Amino acid sequence: MSSLRIVVVGGSAAGPKAAAKARRMDQHAEITIVQKSADLSMASCGYPYYVGGTFQDRRQLICTPAGVVRDPGFFQNAKGITALTKTEAVAIDRAAHRVTCRHLGTGEERVLPYDRLVLATGALPIRPPVPGIELEGITTLQSMEDADRLRRVRDGKEVREAVVIGGGLIGVETCEALHLAGIRITVVEMLPRILSFLDPEMAMLVENHMRTSGARVITGNPVAAFVGREGRVASVKLRDGTELPCELAVVATGVRPNSRLAAESGLAIGERGGIRVDRFLRTSDPDIYAAGDCIEVPHLITGRPVHVPLGDLANLEGRVVGQNVVIPGTAEFPGTLQTGVCKVFDFAAGSTGLSERAAREAGFDAVSVVTAGADRPDYMGAKPLVMKMVAERGTGRLLGVQCVGPGDASKRLAEAAMALHGRLTITDLSVADLPYAPPFSPPIDNLVTAAHVLGNKLAGRMTGISAPEVRAKLDAGERPFILDARGPDEFDVMRLGIGETLIPLGALRKRLSELPSDRDREIVCYCKISLRGYEAAGLIEAQGYRNVKVLEGGILAWPYPREK
Amino acid sequence: MSSLRIVVVGGSAAGPKAAAKARRMDQHAEITIVQKSADLSMASCGYPYYVGGTFQDRRQLICTPAGVVRDPGFFQNAKGITALTKTEAVAIDRAAHRVTCRHLGTGEERVLPYDRLVLATGALPIRPPVPGIELEGITTLQSMEDADRLRRVRDGKEVREAVVIGGGLIGVETCEALHLAGIRITVVEMLPRILSFLDPEMAMLVENHMRTSGARVITGNPVAAFVGREGRVASVKLRDGTELPCELAVVATGVRPNSRLAAESGLAIGERGGIRVDRFLRTSDPDIYAAGDCIEVPHLITGRPVHVPLGDLANLEGRVVGQNVVIPGTAEFPGTLQTGVCKVFDFAAGSTGLSERAAREAGFDAVSVVTAGADRPDYMGAKPLVMKMVAERGTGRLLGVQCVGPGDASKRLAEAAMALHGRLTITDLSVADLPYAPPFSPPIDNLVTAAHVLGNKLAGRMTGISAPEVRAKLDAGERPFILDARGPDEFDVMRLGIGETLIPLGALRKRLSELPSDRDREIVCYCKISLRGYEAAGLIEAQGYRNVKVLEGGILAWPYPREK
Repeated sequence: MSSLRIVVVGGSAAGPKAAAKARRMDQHAEITIVQKSADLSMASCGYPYYVGGTFQDRRQLICTPAGVVRDPGFFQNAKGITALTKTEAVAIDRAAHRVTCRHLGTGEERVLPYDRLVLATGALPIRPPVPGIELEGITTLQSMEDADRLRRVRDGKEVREAVVIGGGLIGVETCEALHLAGIRITVVEMLPRILSFLDPEMAMLVENHMRTSGARVITGNPVAAFVGREGRVASVKLRDGTELPCELAVVATGVRPNSRLAAESGLAIGERGGIRVDRFLRTSDPDIYAAGDCIEVPHLITGRPVHVPLGDLANLEGRVVGQNVVIPGTAEFPGTLQTGVCKVFDFAAGSTGLSERAAREAGFDAVSVVTAGADRPDYMGAKPLVMKMVAERGTGRLLGVQCVGPGDASKRLAEAAMALHGRLTITDLSVADLPYAPPFSPPIDNLVTAAHVLGNKLAGRMTGISAPEVRAKLDAGERPFILDARGPDEFDVMRLGIGETLIPLGALRKRLSELPSDRDREIVCYCKISLRGYEAAGLIEAQGYRNVKVLEGGILAWPYPREK
Repeated sequence: MSSLRIVVVGGSAAGPKAAAKARRMDQHAEITIVQKSADLSMASCGYPYYVGGTFQDRRQLICTPAGVVRDPGFFQNAKGITALTKTEAVAIDRAAHRVTCRHLGTGEERVLPYDRLVLATGALPIRPPVPGIELEGITTLQSMEDADRLRRVRDGKEVREAVVIGGGLIGVETCEALHLAGIRITVVEMLPRILSFLDPEMAMLVENHMRTSGARVITGNPVAAFVGREGRVASVKLRDGTELPCELAVVATGVRPNSRLAAESGLAIGERGGIRVDRFLRTSDPDIYAAGDCIEVPHLITGRPVHVPLGDLANLEGRVVGQNVVIPGTAEFPGTLQTGVCKVFDFAAGSTGLSERAAREAGFDAVSVVTAGADRPDYMGAKPLVMKMVAERGTGRLLGVQCVGPGDASKRLAEAAMALHGRLTITDLSVADLPYAPPFSPPIDNLVTAAHVLGNKLAGRMTGISAPEVRAKLDAGERPFILDARGPDEFDVMRLGIGETLIPLGALRKRLSELPSDRDREIVCYCKISLRGYEAAGLIEAQGYRNVKVLEGGILAWPYPREK
């Protein structure tokens, strides 16, 4: 029996994972990785942390935990895999089962025959087609070379002002990294809000935190041009005329699937521009599989194809492909929840499943709630978290969770992702048995609390009103009676200043006469997190008031300027 | 319409939660809490952290986050709930719907009529019936008074040696608290291992860590007697004759449901000694509900009743009861996964679902694996975690997860608990889309990695051998060929010393001749976490060896003494 010949195009994340898994599945296969870059298996999600100085040795991005560099020698010796670096796959002859490769240094071509081919060609940065984009001092943060370049900027201490174009995951991570390097940063986002996987009121909380942390954030204002001086970028010009002087611009305006080779080979390309694959991650050619940033996969909730260029998915997909190239049809990748998280200064921000906007766009009758709370008991050094939970009205099925704040958001997003995988309902979440101990969690976990509040809303026991709805009412000149149910000490330290009346919950029963006499007047109650606000609302409704609402998430989730 | 009269017996966790939820459900109900202690709503899970000095103000245990003490005035003003403290419910006249209470100070009796009664009478510490148990200096850590007493011990700096009897959650937390107070601690456990919710090899890792941290841990050796001097405890005598001098002994040998009042009232008591309730948490009397440490509830996987005295469940159950006392039959508590976690010095240790032992006892054809790994990328300051995953052979259904180590165990336990709620399989977990960013997680989350390894085992792609199995073989004089696949630098720093041969994975292809010539010889491969060990095993099997095993979890999960 002759050995199975497996060729893997792409050596970053999905490719090496597929190759390694294939090796574990078949000790006799001939496995070759074709990698355009000089490096292999780069921990590309770590670039911002190398640039920001979290660690000093760039080898940590390309080493095993035991400190061995993942170079071709490592792949040969430890895995029995041939890795051709600085080598580009330029053509696939599907009929003959051959890939033509070219060495980027020597130009030498060679032909690799395959029984099974894996495409893991990754994604390409999108560069906005504006004047000046070719100037010196404009870079991306997509490759080891980019990371090296920005790290030199950090260590050189010469750049004082930089602009990051794009407020997505990479944009905000790059912002923090350069800020840590002592550089004044402006993030420019063309959309109305950064981090478009979040609903707007959640994204605004992150923007506020970035500003408080010292970054400038400009939204809803695309780049019109890069202005140069002696061939180097000197400023960034925005559509509204704003000009931002800078010595460095980092373009982080997203990526698109690198599916050119696949398309040229006649493989089916999907509606998001990624290589189309079935649930075994097989392309339209039964002997060619694909994984990672170059493919599109189904969203597990909507069923629609999405392009999700994240390192964790690349690894999971690579493993599925590595198994299927050896024994076809034995491993499935059902799809993604588009789970993502990032660190932004002292905040974490992330999402899993559908945002409210995405749920509505997908045709769901979505209901949502914003809640706020501490991520552990106060006596254990609690940090606040703001959460938005989205569910389907009627069934109560969980559709998505967003989480933002200094507290442990990543844990709650992980819980939520698992709940989505299990197709749990709000009712299921309301009695979920999660690990509790004071160092790690409040007695009722934040996710369970959100389910409780959303359950109350679904059952008609609470009428919520979102911060944007309140803001819009005020801006339209409406004057609901607004009740802050906290104590006077708290009010002295922090308050919204939107015309609210302070009546502490504990005094409300005796001060009901201070409420408006009109039982149809709209009343909006809140406190720091709107638990006391909710209790106040119940008490007021019991007096016959018919239009009482609770400001969801209270002051902690209020994304607009406060009086104090 | 007259108001609904709700009486709640018990004012710690489940009781106040039920009362508060009932109030939110019904603004007109008359709600009374009867509480034996002087305090209400105590954060009892926080006692060890108060004793250990994590925080200084005892009021934090009985305050709202806004700093208001949860005393009867607070309950009256903020919640409209009457709280009778230092008052014991002594009898229930179910026919007349009346509870007789007695004030513990004055002895005065009063009768409270009810429409719905809630029993939240908690649990009572089990005190081992051994001589000397009544001596001064022997305490529990179950009440505010106990916490105050132990905090005075801490602040007094006079106690030098203490013994904690019982190696359960409270025992290990108390051990750490007293150790932080500068007291030399011995933990004594009568069972072979501490933390009986863990399988033995996982519990041993915690024991080792406690010892490394400076505590003494004695297992499999029950207390025979407390020896006194002038009425105060002077030492603890164990069954094997060991005598442990001490000035303080903390008894943490578990609790039993305080179901006496329920039993005396003729309510059904379950097989675990807890009040028997249905899925609405209603007792055998349709007008009496029960919640918290006094009840038993179904285990969600086995269906069998269990007694799980944990604060988070008490809160969830209290909320369900608070809703049902107002609108019967509208909220369900389906049961528990016995999810629990605790901090032990620099480790976290916890479990959700069934341990391997519990799964077998429940009749499952259980298969398990132990894995080890970092809780985030190495360049982000990774901390190790050891995980044990248990699944049902055949269906691949997840049955339980245990997690131990310095890394973020609580997050993985939370993920696992949600996966159990969703009845996910190992296959589902293998492609779970969890939040990934370097500050929070490795690209493949530890739980997903465990599912991959267990999946390999279930599919016959890996033959695992547990540390106890290897230890037993060695102890029985068997001499498998043991292969450490790490590098020489690693071997110099840390090694098992169980007769292993060092052949680095990267050199193995060239050094196959050093393997035994007998293809039937048992070979055990490992490395630090047994990933390289697994790859080595595959390579060796491909040479025709028929009895190759992987030491599960590698060196990180080895609970026995090492040479280095």
